[in-house]
Amino acid sequence: MNDGRYIVGVDLGGTSINVGIVPFDGSRVLAMRSSPTGADKGPKHVVDRIITMIREAMRDAAKEASIPDDGFIGIGLGSPGPLDRATGTVIETPNLGWRNFPLRDLVSNAIGLPGELDNDANCATLGEWWAGAAQGIDHVIGVTLGTGIGGGIVFGGRIFHGVSDAAGEIGHMSIDSTGRKCKCGNYGCLEAYASGPAIAARAVEGLLSGEDSLLLSLVDGDISRITAETVYEGIVAGDTFAKEVMRDTAKFLGAGIANLINLLNPEIVVISGGVTRAGDQLLEPLRNEVRRRAFRPAFESCQIVTSELGNRAGVIGAACVFRVVRFGDL
Amino acid sequence: MNDGRYIVGVDLGGTSINVGIVPFDGSRVLAMRSSPTGADKGPKHVVDRIITMIREAMRDAAKEASIPDDGFIGIGLGSPGPLDRATGTVIETPNLGWRNFPLRDLVSNAIGLPGELDNDANCATLGEWWAGAAQGIDHVIGVTLGTGIGGGIVFGGRIFHGVSDAAGEIGHMSIDSTGRKCKCGNYGCLEAYASGPAIAARAVEGLLSGEDSLLLSLVDGDISRITAETVYEGIVAGDTFAKEVMRDTAKFLGAGIANLINLLNPEIVVISGGVTRAGDQLLEPLRNEVRRRAFRPAFESCQIVTSELGNRAGVIGAACVFRVVRFGDL
Repeated sequence: MNDGRYIVGVDLGGTSINVGIVPFDGSRVLAMRSSPTGADKGPKHVVDRIITMIREAMRDAAKEASIPDDGFIGIGLGSPGPLDRATGTVIETPNLGWRNFPLRDLVSNAIGLPGELDNDANCATLGEWWAGAAQGIDHVIGVTLGTGIGGGIVFGGRIFHGVSDAAGEIGHMSIDSTGRKCKCGNYGCLEAYASGPAIAARAVEGLLSGEDSLLLSLVDGDISRITAETVYEGIVAGDTFAKEVMRDTAKFLGAGIANLINLLNPEIVVISGGVTRAGDQLLEPLRNEVRRRAFRPAFESCQIVTSELGNRAGVIGAACVFRVVRFGDL
Repeated sequence: MNDGRYIVGVDLGGTSINVGIVPFDGSRVLAMRSSPTGADKGPKHVVDRIITMIREAMRDAAKEASIPDDGFIGIGLGSPGPLDRATGTVIETPNLGWRNFPLRDLVSNAIGLPGELDNDANCATLGEWWAGAAQGIDHVIGVTLGTGIGGGIVFGGRIFHGVSDAAGEIGHMSIDSTGRKCKCGNYGCLEAYASGPAIAARAVEGLLSGEDSLLLSLVDGDISRITAETVYEGIVAGDTFAKEVMRDTAKFLGAGIANLINLLNPEIVVISGGVTRAGDQLLEPLRNEVRRRAFRPAFESCQIVTSELGNRAGVIGAACVFRVVRFGDL
């Protein structure tokens, strides 16, 4: 049963911002809202957007659940990283183009509530552990597929941060060390093959090389409008080439997840992001690829599942970060 | 100060077996000895070898340090994995060709002392944390370069085992998912490029394609005798091609270690194995490659060093495993 305390959860991603109000027990999300990030309009625009969304969410939740002003105790923020949790600063983020940006304090001061910042994928993974697909599981890895590929490592209900808060950058594990250049400067990163934009880029490459496909008709012949979403729509419409693009995505992801399984021997890998709507078109070839690559005992002890919480995972997890930092482990 | 209790440490590798006697405080290794593994002669030969070496080491150490019979309290064993610590069984090891092999009990029963088994690279990494290059450091990764490439992850003085003892298989992280087939079944594993045999194979490939080099003269023209050791001797002799082989090795390792740093954000990576004798011929290009690939904040918080304990790391670490399992965390 919730005790009347509520935490604001903010999930900032390269494509969208999600905000919601989470009761202290993590049981649900109130007044959830989503908005495009608009990173190209600069950091001030993004921060103003977050602040407005928080105010609106607090107002709506207060009405919906009769929360008094002092019922809101703080703000948990998830942001692409690497970042410095102690100062609440985003150090570097290829997908937003920010460097040394004091996100936590800008938001916290504007709203007048204490804040805690953590990596967006860490938050999503912690959210799945607190209230989603990984409840009660001690060795959890989360992989978030979006504009970028994020990763979270949660051991015993605690986010594993490494020595300087930079752990978990699963998207920047190279699976082809002489391969595609990644925004981060490395080569062959998983993100360069299996993120949303990378899926779209592979689809476009195929179309330009003359693949027969419905995809072009889904964007009225304008190839520049092809996104990972278009590929998903193509699969739903039964397009063979779209399915092939998804199978390739599964193979790249499978190589990356096999690496994680050989390295960290988790009990569960939770995959989230829009592309997981492809369901078994993604999961089946993905599991097959991991089986083919990972050590048998490590593969056999690991479930590979999709998110239960969807885009609420980051919001619930960000709220959980605030709770854990201020009130101790769950 | 040691308290009169001694632990037998056994480090079983694909190429050699090391055995020594370690005081309870981990301060040194007595009666250290080394022998070829002879894995091709089958598991019985290997186990008999280990048992003989333990008896000899106990006899010599007893003489040297006046240890009474009951001064020896147990045996710590490090073996290539994956393995099952609870039953002391080696589940699968591509480099020895063993499956479901009850190593711990065979040795323990023959000697008449309790035993504990852990992965060889885990042991070596724990040894460096207990008494070597990583003393007092909370986030430690060890990479052992030998017949295979092993890995150990030690957080806060504890080996990180994952959910079923299979964590840390750094050698079986793919850095080129469509690359060289590895013994483990996966493709492009780090081990397939930078293990001792892989270094030799790359040297042989170069020689066969007509590279001008001293290496052939170091093996009296018999190309089948080229090993990683030959490449090391070539470097010492100033051979340009040998240096190139080592630089390539450093690049492969650099891609792998950058992955580890992006994933786990360790404070130190300790590299061990014969190839580290190449010193800066390995370390300098390795650090450059990691710098080029890893996230800056993660790279900057990580030292990359070579082992302080050399082939004693596995022996000391195996003894430490026995101590920790039977007597609690250090």
